[in-house]
Amino acid sequence: MLDLNTIVSLAKRRGFVFPGAEIYGGLAGTWDFGPLGAELAHNIKDLWWKHFVRAHEENYGLASSVLMPEAAWKVSGHVESFTDPLIECKKCKRRFRADELGKLHPPASGCPECGGALGEARPFQMMFKTNIGAVDSEENTVYLRPEIAQGMFVNFKNVLDSMHPTLPFGIAQIGKAFRNEIAPRDFLFRVREFDLMEFEYFIREEEWEEQFDRWRKEIWAWIEKLGIDKNLVHELEVPEGERAHYSERTIDFEFDFPFGKKELYGIAYRGDYDLKRHMEFSGIDLRYTDPVSGEKFLPHVIEPTFGLGRTILALLCSAYREDEMNGEKRAYLAFKPAVAPIKVAVFPLVSNKENIISKARKIYLELKTNNYQLSTIAWDDIGNIGKRYRRQDEIGTPWCVTVDYQTLEDGTATVRDRDTGKQERIKNTELDKYFLEKLS
Amino acid sequence: MLDLNTIVSLAKRRGFVFPGAEIYGGLAGTWDFGPLGAELAHNIKDLWWKHFVRAHEENYGLASSVLMPEAAWKVSGHVESFTDPLIECKKCKRRFRADELGKLHPPASGCPECGGALGEARPFQMMFKTNIGAVDSEENTVYLRPEIAQGMFVNFKNVLDSMHPTLPFGIAQIGKAFRNEIAPRDFLFRVREFDLMEFEYFIREEEWEEQFDRWRKEIWAWIEKLGIDKNLVHELEVPEGERAHYSERTIDFEFDFPFGKKELYGIAYRGDYDLKRHMEFSGIDLRYTDPVSGEKFLPHVIEPTFGLGRTILALLCSAYREDEMNGEKRAYLAFKPAVAPIKVAVFPLVSNKENIISKARKIYLELKTNNYQLSTIAWDDIGNIGKRYRRQDEIGTPWCVTVDYQTLEDGTATVRDRDTGKQERIKNTELDKYFLEKLS
Repeated sequence: MLDLNTIVSLAKRRGFVFPGAEIYGGLAGTWDFGPLGAELAHNIKDLWWKHFVRAHEENYGLASSVLMPEAAWKVSGHVESFTDPLIECKKCKRRFRADELGKLHPPASGCPECGGALGEARPFQMMFKTNIGAVDSEENTVYLRPEIAQGMFVNFKNVLDSMHPTLPFGIAQIGKAFRNEIAPRDFLFRVREFDLMEFEYFIREEEWEEQFDRWRKEIWAWIEKLGIDKNLVHELEVPEGERAHYSERTIDFEFDFPFGKKELYGIAYRGDYDLKRHMEFSGIDLRYTDPVSGEKFLPHVIEPTFGLGRTILALLCSAYREDEMNGEKRAYLAFKPAVAPIKVAVFPLVSNKENIISKARKIYLELKTNNYQLSTIAWDDIGNIGKRYRRQDEIGTPWCVTVDYQTLEDGTATVRDRDTGKQERIKNTELDKYFLEKLS
Repeated sequence: MLDLNTIVSLAKRRGFVFPGAEIYGGLAGTWDFGPLGAELAHNIKDLWWKHFVRAHEENYGLASSVLMPEAAWKVSGHVESFTDPLIECKKCKRRFRADELGKLHPPASGCPECGGALGEARPFQMMFKTNIGAVDSEENTVYLRPEIAQGMFVNFKNVLDSMHPTLPFGIAQIGKAFRNEIAPRDFLFRVREFDLMEFEYFIREEEWEEQFDRWRKEIWAWIEKLGIDKNLVHELEVPEGERAHYSERTIDFEFDFPFGKKELYGIAYRGDYDLKRHMEFSGIDLRYTDPVSGEKFLPHVIEPTFGLGRTILALLCSAYREDEMNGEKRAYLAFKPAVAPIKVAVFPLVSNKENIISKARKIYLELKTNNYQLSTIAWDDIGNIGKRYRRQDEIGTPWCVTVDYQTLEDGTATVRDRDTGKQERIKNTELDKYFLEKLS
């Protein structure tokens, strides 16, 4: 069984993920993406946008604000019920999530820290609250969004008026959300600041089952495209009692994380709950007009949701491998080329021969600048070739190009495959084409 | 002179920018990007990342958290001095920025709203404050970052340790920042939530003038690449008294906005101020070790900064044109193809001939799916061709393809150029290649 610490440690050591504000002791529940993590995140967001937005002519992008007024969160139900049950120890005053505590220690048994008696559970608001404008007053209360869906519902009419879409159509966005988790944990899994990728797909009520099934399949297609091992992903049909009251069907896509089977993605049928609430409380007509019949009605909604951090964590766990190569143990990340932060690394075989170095630099710069698809090309001339291969393996680089003495004679370089370790000689002039084909 | 309202109105009507939380009366200082604005923003961020990060092998990406602990903002100086001078009217209690008020009404003359007497100016903290964790206490105070630079300084050691860069090198990121502006105004110009694109370029002290000049030129190259009219951009050498105390040189790139010449971009030489402060207060050694001499020292920093919202606003203002074509007035956005949200629109000449429609659909779907560069392809079959051209002109689509009767005979379609209105016939099978070449 993969140990989460192996992933956390690799992620930090190799520049994927750093603890937030680490030099100040860290800020629990926040993580910063380092150079490789930022590229990985960039690739995933880009692929998601292409897969779910650009590839579907009826899907429209959006980028709504993190700050939203209290009114909107009252209507959505978050002010009242986006809470966790919180229990305080009467002695040491530490606070715990009641449901988590219940699993570890029946509340009656005393506080896990000091043995003190525990108080009653009370609801704890998980939205971060702040004030906007120069006066601190209730009127000026705003919340950092704890999810990105409401920004899409609130802009529903603006999208209707500007784009004139016909049903079915989607509104999609990628953006930050914030939750004041009482107990952030499990690395990127339960955090206080995170990116979501999500869309609201607006439909006629009668087609909800068909559309639900269509997007459920598209989620599987996405998992495959990304290269997350499908055997580690399991559908969970959320039973009625555990679904939001407005949802007639919800499926969680759970992943076998090192800390257990937990939610990776989700798809929910939300009915017309959100638009109805926003129409009622804002007083703005949010109904869609059928272009043929002229009938006005509120569309229903299918909502597929994807956490970026959880995707990265699932990818790291799914791609992590240990094996033996040439008699040495190695660890590598078997990323699909499309998501790998570095696509190709270029090495001079030796670091003290000017003609080999200059030839390798030439190849490196050509690959880097010829084609933006190939812009994440790395250079490494430190240590012996074996060590350089291991370094690239560990960050998931699919191919390494080595320029050697033969290159100077016949204009070919070796291309080594990360997973098999096999090498083939490719003409320098054909490298660009070779990788473009592999990547497409 | 271009009227800002023309841009605001076009932006809303055509799906570029909507007021934040509009159905709840709006939230001043927040704007949501609609479908076309989200694509435009996506294109700009992507181009910036390629231009300033991926194209430079010594530049490293990062994505740090919005939430940062108070300690970091005390060290950076923001808790003490990231303030605006605020004046309250003693009668109506409304609050104003003292410096803005000073320009309009000498403070002695009474409040502009009610004539009441004005109080003394006092500093108003512009960072949004919130609490993290289950206990509201000073210890748990966090701020939403008002800039993205500190996240890069705080991670300086993590980047050194994981990537082993050698000087000079850069750390870059794109991300949200938040400022509680007393008086947000001028559309996307002065807002409370915005995206910044920025990098810290770490250098040896002795090369600062040369590096400053290098990146100053790269900013001009970026302006040109983006297609902002260079004649509307002016360098302002910020005089000593107005620079931050640690900066020995700062240049603002000002743009001729409809509301005046105001800062679009900036480049500052920050010395070693930030790293020195963070090292002093965190107690963590942030010095760089020269790989040859072994000497340890704090690098100096050149910082180029770019606001995404201001870039979008400058682009809209710069690209907006009105002229007459075929005897009709029209408005269009002369976007460069690389930034245009829609690259190509495909039309059937008539909307009641099945064979023309199906041919046009085929061409549309091929362009859309063949190549992801061309994925933002639009379809329009509503109204007459003239109206469709005007609609695409207004959102800056560089080319429109019309499928007509001749297409059925000889397999060519017309391609119309947005700026000149000129049309040429291109073979259907060559459209993909034609646009790829135009776009590269």
